[in-house]
Amino acid sequence: MQGEAHTFRMYDLITKKKRGGELTKEEIQYFITGCVANMIPNEQQAALLMAVWAQGMTDRETTDLTLAMAESGETMDLSSLPGVKVDKHSTGGVGDKTTLVVAPLTAAAGLTVAKMSGRGLGHTGGTIDKLESIPGFRTSLTMEEFFDGVQKNGLALMGQTGDLVPADKKLYAMRDIIAAVDSIPLIASSIMSKKLAAGTDVILLDVKMGSGAFMKTLEDAEKLAQTMVNIGEAAGKRTEALITDMNQPLGLAIGNALEVAEAAEVLRGNGPEDVREESVMLSAELLYLAGRGHRDECRRIAEETLCSGKALEKFCAMVRTQGGDDAVIRDPSKFARASVVHEVLAPWDGYIVGMAAEYIGGVSVMLGAGRDDLGDAVDPRAGILLRKKYGEQVTKGERIATLCTSKEDVVAEAEKHFLEAISVGAETPQPRKLIYARVEKDKVVRY
Amino acid sequence: MQGEAHTFRMYDLITKKKRGGELTKEEIQYFITGCVANMIPNEQQAALLMAVWAQGMTDRETTDLTLAMAESGETMDLSSLPGVKVDKHSTGGVGDKTTLVVAPLTAAAGLTVAKMSGRGLGHTGGTIDKLESIPGFRTSLTMEEFFDGVQKNGLALMGQTGDLVPADKKLYAMRDIIAAVDSIPLIASSIMSKKLAAGTDVILLDVKMGSGAFMKTLEDAEKLAQTMVNIGEAAGKRTEALITDMNQPLGLAIGNALEVAEAAEVLRGNGPEDVREESVMLSAELLYLAGRGHRDECRRIAEETLCSGKALEKFCAMVRTQGGDDAVIRDPSKFARASVVHEVLAPWDGYIVGMAAEYIGGVSVMLGAGRDDLGDAVDPRAGILLRKKYGEQVTKGERIATLCTSKEDVVAEAEKHFLEAISVGAETPQPRKLIYARVEKDKVVRY
Repeated sequence: MQGEAHTFRMYDLITKKKRGGELTKEEIQYFITGCVANMIPNEQQAALLMAVWAQGMTDRETTDLTLAMAESGETMDLSSLPGVKVDKHSTGGVGDKTTLVVAPLTAAAGLTVAKMSGRGLGHTGGTIDKLESIPGFRTSLTMEEFFDGVQKNGLALMGQTGDLVPADKKLYAMRDIIAAVDSIPLIASSIMSKKLAAGTDVILLDVKMGSGAFMKTLEDAEKLAQTMVNIGEAAGKRTEALITDMNQPLGLAIGNALEVAEAAEVLRGNGPEDVREESVMLSAELLYLAGRGHRDECRRIAEETLCSGKALEKFCAMVRTQGGDDAVIRDPSKFARASVVHEVLAPWDGYIVGMAAEYIGGVSVMLGAGRDDLGDAVDPRAGILLRKKYGEQVTKGERIATLCTSKEDVVAEAEKHFLEAISVGAETPQPRKLIYARVEKDKVVRY
Repeated sequence: MQGEAHTFRMYDLITKKKRGGELTKEEIQYFITGCVANMIPNEQQAALLMAVWAQGMTDRETTDLTLAMAESGETMDLSSLPGVKVDKHSTGGVGDKTTLVVAPLTAAAGLTVAKMSGRGLGHTGGTIDKLESIPGFRTSLTMEEFFDGVQKNGLALMGQTGDLVPADKKLYAMRDIIAAVDSIPLIASSIMSKKLAAGTDVILLDVKMGSGAFMKTLEDAEKLAQTMVNIGEAAGKRTEALITDMNQPLGLAIGNALEVAEAAEVLRGNGPEDVREESVMLSAELLYLAGRGHRDECRRIAEETLCSGKALEKFCAMVRTQGGDDAVIRDPSKFARASVVHEVLAPWDGYIVGMAAEYIGGVSVMLGAGRDDLGDAVDPRAGILLRKKYGEQVTKGERIATLCTSKEDVVAEAEKHFLEAISVGAETPQPRKLIYARVEKDKVVRY
């Protein structure tokens, strides 16, 4: 604390917040410091978080909370690395493997990607789990290895270290116990404190919206995005968000090795159009934020880098540097196959009018591709290959998905749940947008 | 739990309540049982209480909460005692000594008063502290002594035993830490659970309203009163509430022996008009609720019992039975005097247009009449005698109050605070009501 000494009492902070008041920077700092130092009783932490849940926070409070959290532990200093350091972060979707395309693509285009990623939990996967399906690939790096990788390839991806943002670990665990996860200021500060501590110059947020995402409506997604963008900008980072669809899984592959294989296909110029388009959009936006020209020009650079094969080469180089075998990237058919492969056949005729992404993510977890607890192991080969997607016509008996697992006994139930996640109609539904909006500082541009 | 076994999770209860949902009877029972058995983590207790603070509770929920709390420990069985067992409970005011008049008056009129009372905390006094200023009087009775006293005199007053309503002790301590005291369903359930556990047939609530009370507005006071009355009636008790003024202290005396002396004066047919009137109103209402006739008739009985001296004799009999010396009741001048007696002189001319009861209560605590922590001792002789009240004209240099204490060093500051609590105007203010409303089941009658 600077200047005159103040004595803060949690009782007063809770009283102020529960009545809709605005906490000062110093009060927020007191709360975060006290939480990390184990000086604040759990019941008072819980009461304040629930009061925040009920009353919200102003942008100023949310920014101060984020900064206090970001500074609660170690922070990354990337200043010794060359170039513009960029980070792309997704709020979590099913089948979202865009990091595996965007990171090598932007690195190949000259940006610096020194990125920490997380593991999957619940119905969404995590980049680190996906990368670990590559034989030999190491995601636990020393700081020296991480910096060396970035120096060498302009690109390194590693798991989060435990020393960044201890306040987030404490508060998230508390929110998880007391049902205070679903609060925009608390979600925004949790994500952005980690992004700020990670030390990049540019932050691009991919805020998922739809049935398979935390944010179910465009309005909520825009609010979360705007809150996070304003925090990033207030902290001196070039920050933007794209709001992208999560009403159905992204691409056709769900599951770790399956998703790496799909990303590799995209890097080879093939792969599903939605994964390709979203990856190019995100890459172009990163280039734009890094000052590489107008958006049109950046889009052109992204397309060219992808088509040239340089993005694929960059990915292979990173894989080799981090101990992995890039043979599976060059030829995804070399990935180990699941021992049980089950085709799901359509029991009806019609058009697919809904694919509940959250439930389909749940099916992939059931098959072994994800985890319910952070300690659980995942099966790299398990998952789902979709054969039909939203809007497509299906005929009874036609293959609509392939389930991959090593657990024979879960197949019947997984198929049942998968079919329950699909809605079928008599007519072709309205097409859906892939990208709904771009959110800049104090500004939303709807697409 | 009856019937089919359910598994409840606090997470689900918190989620439901924070979103404004209604908890079931079984969910509330689970919460209370879990709290008393120390099976629910503090942070989840805190989160649910804060969610209740923010979202409120329906009458049905509040009643179920109250019943679950009332049954969380021992309950009093008064069925072996003769007559209609009645209880009058005040939500807490400054200078409120009506229990010391109402209890013996209604007992003298034939009702049965087997009453447990509390100690004072903060700016309001407690009946037990007041009674203990009577030399020799014992407020810690065995159950046998308590029942014997009621059998003999129709009247006994004792301190609360620790075995009633353990859930309230837990929840109140938690609310006190997390700033969740000021919630109508939580206040109502705290008060009414103790009243239900105390086992009387009739409950009359004296809900204080005004600057010196918890409820600052008539609307809030009526809401609290209605909630409590509906709980009592739902539990099969004849329950009503009167809403009485606490914009200034009641009567002229504030402090333990000073208030007993004033109550004794009222029992002798003298004393301040407001104390007398409020006591008679409360007594008449208890007689009415006990089925002793129309309100007019009950008012006549109350007046006659007071004038006859039988109420005074009843009080003296109780004092003697509980080991006290009734000489101070028969001649209040025999009470020990405070060692320091300081006259406060008016520093201005005008009319008293405000007497902030809460601050004046605070001054009495400063003088030694109250406590900040439940473990502190009180000085029975300390307190304030008001010489002027709301609406009265004062002349500069005229005596407006007498401060009584054993602590010479606090007098100057106490006088300063006392004067700050008084507002003076150039004209006589609008007269205030003593009793604002009567609250019956689903019905408010404003006076």
